[in-house]
Formats: sequence, structure tokens, C-alpha cells
Amino acid sequence: MSTIKSNLKQLGVALPSAPKPLGNFAPFIIDQNTLMISGQISVDATGNVVRGKLGDDFSLEQGYKAARLCAIGLLARANAALDGELDRIEQLLKLGAFVNATPEFGDHPKVVNGASDFMVEALGRKRGEHVRFAVGTSSLPSNAAVEIEAIFRVRTD
Amino acid sequence: MSTIKSNLKQLGVALPSAPKPLGNFAPFIIDQNTLMISGQISVDATGNVVRGKLGDDFSLEQGYKAARLCAIGLLARANAALDGELDRIEQLLKLGAFVNATPEFGDHPKVVNGASDFMVEALGRKRGEHVRFAVGTSSLPSNAAVEIEAIFRVRTD
Amino acid sequence: MSTIKSNLKQLGVALPSAPKPLGNFAPFIIDQNTLMISGQISVDATGNVVRGKLGDDFSLEQGYKAARLCAIGLLARANAALDGELDRIEQLLKLGAFVNATPEFGDHPKVVNGASDFMVEALGRKRGEHVRFAVGTSSLPSNAAVEIEAIFRVRTD
Repeated sequence: MSTIKSNLKQLGVALPSAPKPLGNFAPFIIDQNTLMISGQISVDATGNVVRGKLGDDFSLEQGYKAARLCAIGLLARANAALDGELDRIEQLLKLGAFVNATPEFGDHPKVVNGASDFMVEALGRKRGEHVRFAVGTSSLPSNAAVEIEAIFRVRTD
Repeated sequence: MSTIKSNLKQLGVALPSAPKPLGNFAPFIIDQNTLMISGQISVDATGNVVRGKLGDDFSLEQGYKAARLCAIGLLARANAALDGELDRIEQLLKLGAFVNATPEFGDHPKVVNGASDFMVEALGRKRGEHVRFAVGTSSLPSNAAVEIEAIFRVRTD
Repeated sequence: MSTIKSNLKQLGVALPSAPKPLGNFAPFIIDQNTLMISGQISVDATGNVVRGKLGDDFSLEQGYKAARLCAIGLLARANAALDGELDRIEQLLKLGAFVNATPEFGDHPKVVNGASDFMVEALGRKRGEHVRFAVGTSSLPSNAAVEIEAIFRVRTD
């Protein structure tokens, strides 16, 4: 069993099938050693969008969990891109995170840590360490709470 | 005649001259095989900014058209970057799209499809398929309705 | 003395130590010839966050200075990534800029020029010319006025 799949099993996370894009675009593209994953909104294990606005009707804890769901969806897409061979991931390079929030909100990093923490737990510290941006947005597709895009470096053999 | 230029002719689209940047930055940069294009706001064929806020005074149909104008501007810049040889485009890799919208809006994907659909029509399915993010924003330069950045893989010979 | 460090000296800018990330992520990653820097919020020389919302309580001039502070922080992180050898920077490729603004604001390019101008002054025109996106956002971490991410091409020898 691969290391990443072992980690996921220990975390009690079963990757869902890769979420379908909500528009006319690809869920992922592999360009040489770079795997780019489209913006993934927060969707739960049954496929329902997790909606909410931080600073309003949605708590930090809910936001953290929503960001974690984005990361799980990103990894599900990576799994599909790599034909189930998740250990072809050499490193998560970047997360770009958008948090649906009110104009007064300022705790975006605590929300997005839900995705970053999960990536480090699933990939391990060395492969999971990444750069990121985390910003607020006034609205997201389907009124989702969080949307995150990702870039991985992968082995292409 | 190149395939992409034939497609554009069939679509009835004449590429404008590449829109000038609104600040101290380059409209495009070619780094090895990667062509990066700066964020392109919605500008019509006569150079006027297409302004509006989705969810407020701007309909989905207007938004779709505004996103399409961003894509036309991106392709005009690509054309300038490639000295008019558009067929040096091997693939559109990514669109990063920001939609000027009210806090309640949730149909960003339908808006941004205006850009994605155009790219697939102009470049063909194989070269036009891309990853993307589509998010809301509370404000954009010159109160434009949409801003989109792009990354292409290009032939450098 | 290196050219970039000479430029900084002429500009009267002393790079601070690299700002620490506000969450579970890396301040920078070098992947082959690409140096990616995490989103850097506006922080002054003493480490205090520069807060404000353009269009509301924060002037264009304050915004320009806040964007410049982001650029200084980005260069401080680049300096740390390159073990103090800033002249390993071959080119700034991209800035991705988020401006904390009201829904009516439209002068984001003038704000973000604070970062672009500084980069061109510090790196020189040839190494400093970059693509960028500049968009509004309704909220940023710690209520910062500006957040900017960067990508550089660097020499890895």
C-alpha cells in the first residue's frame, strides 16, 4: 500500500470520486511534471455544497472543515489524474484559497489551515509543505464557503 | 491560414490590437515554453471597459459576453506575444477568473463559461481544454465586470 | 556588492527578516528554476500589519505604500530563499495582487503599482518586468490593505 493511501486510511478519509467541474473546463491538467487542479469548492462526502459566509452565519470551525473538504476534493482529482497512483506526487507546490467572507472578517489563515493541515497529514511534511495565498471573497460559485486551487509536482513515468 | 485563425474567422472574431496594461507591468511574458498573460478586464471591440456587477445591474447573459471579451483580449495579447503565429499555442493550460458580483451571487461558472467556451471554439477541444478557477470579487479595476488571467504552453522555435 | 543590493541601498530600503507565515505553509518554495512566494500581506518595517480598505478609510497614496511594503516583504522572502544571493534572481515573472476595497472602488492598478514600481526599481527594468493581476477583495487576513503573491525565475547553481 502506498504511503499516501496509508496516511489517508489512518486519517479515516476515503477519497470520493473526483468532483465534476461546474463549467466547460477540465478538472485537472498534467503539463510535463506539473499537475494543475481546477478551483475546488467545498463539497461534502455526499456531494452537497457546503455553503456559508465567514464572519456571518459560518463559524471558524465550520470554515476549517470546509477548507479540509476542498483539500479532500483536490486530492480526489489528483488521484484520478494519476490513475490512482497517488505516490507519483512528489510535492504539493501551491494552494490558492478563496474564503467567502464578510468585509470585516480577518481570520482567513485559520480557515485555510483546514486544507493545509490535511495536505501535510496526508502527504507527510516533506511532500505536503507548500506556498499559498489565502484571501477573502464576497461570493463564490453555488455560495460555497471556500474554493481552493492546487499545483503539484508529479512523477510522469 | 492557421487553424486557430481559421476558427476565429468562422467565429466572426477579428482580434483587436493587444490591450495596453493599465499599470507598470507587461501584458505578457514568455518563460521557456510558458506564455503568461496578465489579468485582462472586459473591454469591447472599441476599447471601452464593459462595467457591471453580477447579481445587481448586470445579467448572466451580459456577464457571459463580458467573459468572452476577456478571452478575446487574452488571445489578442497571445497573438502579439507570438508575433502573429497563434498556432505556436500548444495548449491553453489555465484561466484564473474574477467576477465582479454582489455577496449573494452564485452563478460564476455560467459567467466564466463565456471565456472557456470561446477558448475551446477558437483553439479546438484538444488545445483549448484548461483548468480554471472562477471566484467572485467585490470590485475590479475600472469597475469592469470580469477580469481573467491565462497561462498557455507554446512552441518556442 | 550585487546589483540588486546596490539598488536597494540607493532606494534606502533595508530588507527586513523574512516575514513568518500566518498559517501552516511555507514562506517560499524553489521548484527547479521557479521560486514561488506565498501571499504577503502589507506589514511595515516594525512588523505591524498595515490595515485599511481602499475606497473607505484608506487613500490611494496609503494603498500605494502598502503595496510597496508587500513587495519589500516578497523580496525579503526571496532573499531568505536564495541564502542572501539576490542576484540569483533572473526575472520576476508574476505578481498576483489582492486589494482590500469597497464595492465601488476601481483604482486597483494605481495601488498595485506601488509593488510593481518597487520591483522595477530594485531589480532593474529587464529583470523586474512582470505580468500581474490586480483585483479587489472584500476582506484580507488581519484586515490588511493589500496581499500579493510572486513568482520568480532564479538561477539554481
